[in-house]
Amino acid sequence: MRWDELAEEPCSIARTVSVIGDRWTLLILRDCFLRVRRFDDFEARLGITRHILADRLKKLVDAGVLQKVPYQDRQLRYEYRLTQKGLDLYPVLMSIVHWGDTHMTSGKGRPLLHRHLTCGHRFDPMLVCSVCCEPVDPREVTVMPGPGAAPSTRGNAAGRSGIRR
Amino acid sequence: MRWDELAEEPCSIARTVSVIGDRWTLLILRDCFLRVRRFDDFEARLGITRHILADRLKKLVDAGVLQKVPYQDRQLRYEYRLTQKGLDLYPVLMSIVHWGDTHMTSGKGRPLLHRHLTCGHRFDPMLVCSVCCEPVDPREVTVMPGPGAAPSTRGNAAGRSGIRR
Repeated sequence: MRWDELAEEPCSIARTVSVIGDRWTLLILRDCFLRVRRFDDFEARLGITRHILADRLKKLVDAGVLQKVPYQDRQLRYEYRLTQKGLDLYPVLMSIVHWGDTHMTSGKGRPLLHRHLTCGHRFDPMLVCSVCCEPVDPREVTVMPGPGAAPSTRGNAAGRSGIRR
Repeated sequence: MRWDELAEEPCSIARTVSVIGDRWTLLILRDCFLRVRRFDDFEARLGITRHILADRLKKLVDAGVLQKVPYQDRQLRYEYRLTQKGLDLYPVLMSIVHWGDTHMTSGKGRPLLHRHLTCGHRFDPMLVCSVCCEPVDPREVTVMPGPGAAPSTRGNAAGRSGIRR
């Protein structure tokens, strides 16, 4: 498989990776969720070249993850804001944060703490089942081909179940 | 910031991205969660060069995400299995799947359906607060520097809150 074929792959991870899998893109999205919106602010925080930053922002706009919103600052300029499609990436970012907090802090503790305004408490993100609301263990999940599966895999469900140990 | 400085950045996303942010690595991990364990099977499914595959598997082993387990097949060979640190990436992968299912199926429906053996139902992953168990809306989260924050940001919490609109 070539990298530019990923978006066509009948796999929701491959398709998502075709949008957010670039190594800088996730850090741009991290900053979006921290309310960074202006080109110069992204540049100052990330320390990447203007060319790469402009390219990644354009791709996120083209993918409908960010929208350009005009603002006036002597001359007309644009802010980059998350769309609903972009806001829907929050569980991806928070899951990545939580894994890093758990496994990659090298004893120094978490760089950021998160407070949930709804309940007022510091919290961790937790992935639960939408039906029973229990935390999901990968050993307790099986998969089967859905309507968007490649034709060749539709009759081949049982052997591709999730992790069982 | 240079890419190879990411693992040192006091940010759990940057550190996680330094492990899993490579464009092929997430697809290797996807296959690990689908019980793919052998080099030749990864190669056949992903269609990447043996050189790249070997490099990415080695990095995941070095990072403690996969472990090499010997098995006998005429000659001694190794399987790649998720460690607990690797299994802990499940929320990341499932969040990516769910976003792709929601926004990237182009009308054809989901490639894969997931069944939760604990309750027996087809389910979606849902990100909730570990304290109140309510779904987490990014507009209802604020952040503050934690013990592992860079010294320069510790006194600078309020301005870096989460999304409020």
